[in-house]
Amino acid sequence: MSAGLWLIGLGPGNLDHMSKKAIDVARACSERFLEGYTAILPPYQEDRLEDFVGKWERIMRPLVEDPEKLLKLAKEEPVALLIVGDPMQATTHVDLEARCDELDIDFNIIPGITATALAVSLSGLQSYRFGRQVTIPYSYGDYLPSSPLEMIYRNYDNNLHTLVLLDLDPTGMGVEKPTPMSPHDAFTILQKMEKKMVEGGKKISQPVKNLDGVLLTDISLDSQKIIAGNLSEISEYNDGWIHCLIIPSKMNQNEIDAFERRKIV
Amino acid sequence: MSAGLWLIGLGPGNLDHMSKKAIDVARACSERFLEGYTAILPPYQEDRLEDFVGKWERIMRPLVEDPEKLLKLAKEEPVALLIVGDPMQATTHVDLEARCDELDIDFNIIPGITATALAVSLSGLQSYRFGRQVTIPYSYGDYLPSSPLEMIYRNYDNNLHTLVLLDLDPTGMGVEKPTPMSPHDAFTILQKMEKKMVEGGKKISQPVKNLDGVLLTDISLDSQKIIAGNLSEISEYNDGWIHCLIIPSKMNQNEIDAFERRKIV
Repeated sequence: MSAGLWLIGLGPGNLDHMSKKAIDVARACSERFLEGYTAILPPYQEDRLEDFVGKWERIMRPLVEDPEKLLKLAKEEPVALLIVGDPMQATTHVDLEARCDELDIDFNIIPGITATALAVSLSGLQSYRFGRQVTIPYSYGDYLPSSPLEMIYRNYDNNLHTLVLLDLDPTGMGVEKPTPMSPHDAFTILQKMEKKMVEGGKKISQPVKNLDGVLLTDISLDSQKIIAGNLSEISEYNDGWIHCLIIPSKMNQNEIDAFERRKIV
Repeated sequence: MSAGLWLIGLGPGNLDHMSKKAIDVARACSERFLEGYTAILPPYQEDRLEDFVGKWERIMRPLVEDPEKLLKLAKEEPVALLIVGDPMQATTHVDLEARCDELDIDFNIIPGITATALAVSLSGLQSYRFGRQVTIPYSYGDYLPSSPLEMIYRNYDNNLHTLVLLDLDPTGMGVEKPTPMSPHDAFTILQKMEKKMVEGGKKISQPVKNLDGVLLTDISLDSQKIIAGNLSEISEYNDGWIHCLIIPSKMNQNEIDAFERRKIV
């Protein structure tokens, strides 16, 4: 294979969902780096990675955002940057496209399944009824913006469902191994945002604890669990490794049925 | 493998993007049906399908929406329903989950990469800035709703990008092989919607011909092409097999750069 940078999607977490093409191209590269901060593989999947693609090395945010070393290598030989999910979901990977373009380095993408796309499809809710997605950040010190909850309410009032991602990086620096936020923490943070909105005189569409929610835990892994209920109920579920949340707006009958099938009995 | 229904994602069109797991499970099933109406494989990929999964048979809408035959089989043996993209994106597949639940038939999902998720990531635009997606339907007789364009403008005015899917079924019946809509036809239909809005006294955010667009053609295939420009320019591109469109709202600098890199020179 010729020199260049190959961004390769590893899929949603379970390596069995990698495509044959992703495996073949990763193996054919002469160096392989795992991008380790925008997303994370569960430890026992990380242990399997070498069997799938060969020897690899982890790199964190500084080496991806100041990619001189990476690009110098890619100018000389085929280099794989392995990325959990789909490679182009994160801004930082789009930046790599720009850098390769400037430096005339061959740039290629092998797509992967993202957990976010799966979350939507596994929820049983209709994909075209989703509004913009929202991330709940860890709070840094006293600072807690209420804008994520405001966006959830805006979707809700416009009759659109919201996919809610939970933050992975309590430090905000991208240098340590990610720490997925628990459903309980997400619920607590949403309630703090609600309190801030109420104190600021902003209208809330529905108290946070009464909102419906679908909790998707460990998507694609053997431990995958999808449960429905109100946010207060489902935030009690704290098993599993990594979570995301869907907050449905008004559901049609098919969606209500799917929601009921996912309820904790 | 035990009896049950397996919904298996074939990925975005190029079968090389199928996961190892999807291939293994499809092969292990005793019968395989290709769902042939919500999405379509390019002819030369369809020719490869047997090599990947073994013998298969095409089924159209009537046999999927009245699935007695399918479910009777799945009660006795492992049955694969092969679906282009991800299995749970279409309502009709969520209905199968409900039917299996009622009849106590084992129901399983093997995910696939959807062209819609790839469209967003390959555009270079940021996934969290997308509003709800929109489909441009073929017009049936004189009837042409302007609601798809109104939704595009609503996203646009709320500073959200729109993923626009193009209809596959000129008959609306789901019994014939899908016919992907061309960029030129999509542009003409959008302009008709604009005319209808203007005549009805509705406000338009921007004339259709001046809207920016990213056209994604033959996603994942060797013939994949991604081009940017205004809608009038990119609608001139009518090569390729299947298309979708992204209509960006105000772009940030990274997004503008990505857009420029995709412009037709």
